[in-house]
Amino acid sequence: MKELHEAIRSQGIGKEGGIVKVDMFLNHRMNTALMVEMGQAFHEAFGDQPVDLILTVESSGIAVALTTAIAFGNLPVVFAKKGKPSTLAGEVYQSKVYSYTRGEECPISVAKAYLPPQARVLIIDDFLANGEASQGLVDITQQAGAHVVGIGICVEKSFQSGGAKLRSQGFKVVSLARVTGIEDGKPVLEEEEA
Amino acid sequence: MKELHEAIRSQGIGKEGGIVKVDMFLNHRMNTALMVEMGQAFHEAFGDQPVDLILTVESSGIAVALTTAIAFGNLPVVFAKKGKPSTLAGEVYQSKVYSYTRGEECPISVAKAYLPPQARVLIIDDFLANGEASQGLVDITQQAGAHVVGIGICVEKSFQSGGAKLRSQGFKVVSLARVTGIEDGKPVLEEEEA
Repeated sequence: MKELHEAIRSQGIGKEGGIVKVDMFLNHRMNTALMVEMGQAFHEAFGDQPVDLILTVESSGIAVALTTAIAFGNLPVVFAKKGKPSTLAGEVYQSKVYSYTRGEECPISVAKAYLPPQARVLIIDDFLANGEASQGLVDITQQAGAHVVGIGICVEKSFQSGGAKLRSQGFKVVSLARVTGIEDGKPVLEEEEA
Repeated sequence: MKELHEAIRSQGIGKEGGIVKVDMFLNHRMNTALMVEMGQAFHEAFGDQPVDLILTVESSGIAVALTTAIAFGNLPVVFAKKGKPSTLAGEVYQSKVYSYTRGEECPISVAKAYLPPQARVLIIDDFLANGEASQGLVDITQQAGAHVVGIGICVEKSFQSGGAKLRSQGFKVVSLARVTGIEDGKPVLEEEEA
């Protein structure tokens, strides 16, 4: 996606250890116009199938999940909560997500009431690296007996294994930008198909 | 705001200790149309003044901050991060927010680069109870030397002291719904002016 590629080129920072920093427009300061355009891009990618709700995980997935929901005509958004659930264990679906940045496992949870078994779920997140967060959301969707329509990602680090793992499970994964590595302090982008 | 009042009446839950649960449409499952309408309502309330950016705090403030930013013609949104900042102390503005629900103080921070001294800042959050989060965002804005245009809140618990404290400091605080207490397991709403 052209606008996202341009933002990554002009404002993205690459760091040692394969870290891609896009704080300036995606996950601390947010470029609102870009958020809206990414939501529309996800609607273009997945809008040919019926979708009942958008599922993401706090915090930085929320904005683009919301603009995607708007592009789909105001679908509901459910965001998984991180940390120990405040409600009783029987009332939530839970999964565990290993965070490589923090070096620890973090539980995520969704109240059962908000993920009906018949729901057709589009998973949206800002980043895909090792795929832990997306896999956790897939896990929760499947616990609910609901259907994963697809997985939409803003920035995929294609030098890490998450995308391959999810695609090998048969999921449609659409990334709006794919970073193939870091060079001279900048993320290197896979060229878009014309 | 009529739509928010209706959602609170039909789906809000009141619990002991003055807890107002609006998980169903505001801060776990999100009613996207309502989010868009709340953004427009904040634009109506504050749109007569110039605003450069919307400031909120993760996680549940992000969605309504974004729809407000859209209503203002795609302003940038900055969300304060909770927990110990991952970047160096000198690079962020920090404040402390006491969480009554968790019973502990939580640091919040904003990268200095994203809050310029001349910025006219509209603070948006989903809830106002004791005013800890909003006060933390005011503190951070003032550390930056930036100007607080106003504070927009979805649900104010007017039986707690936050609103009064912020208004006594001279800030324009606009709440789209004001809950005056809990009765029979339901939040009681202050009637809207005609």
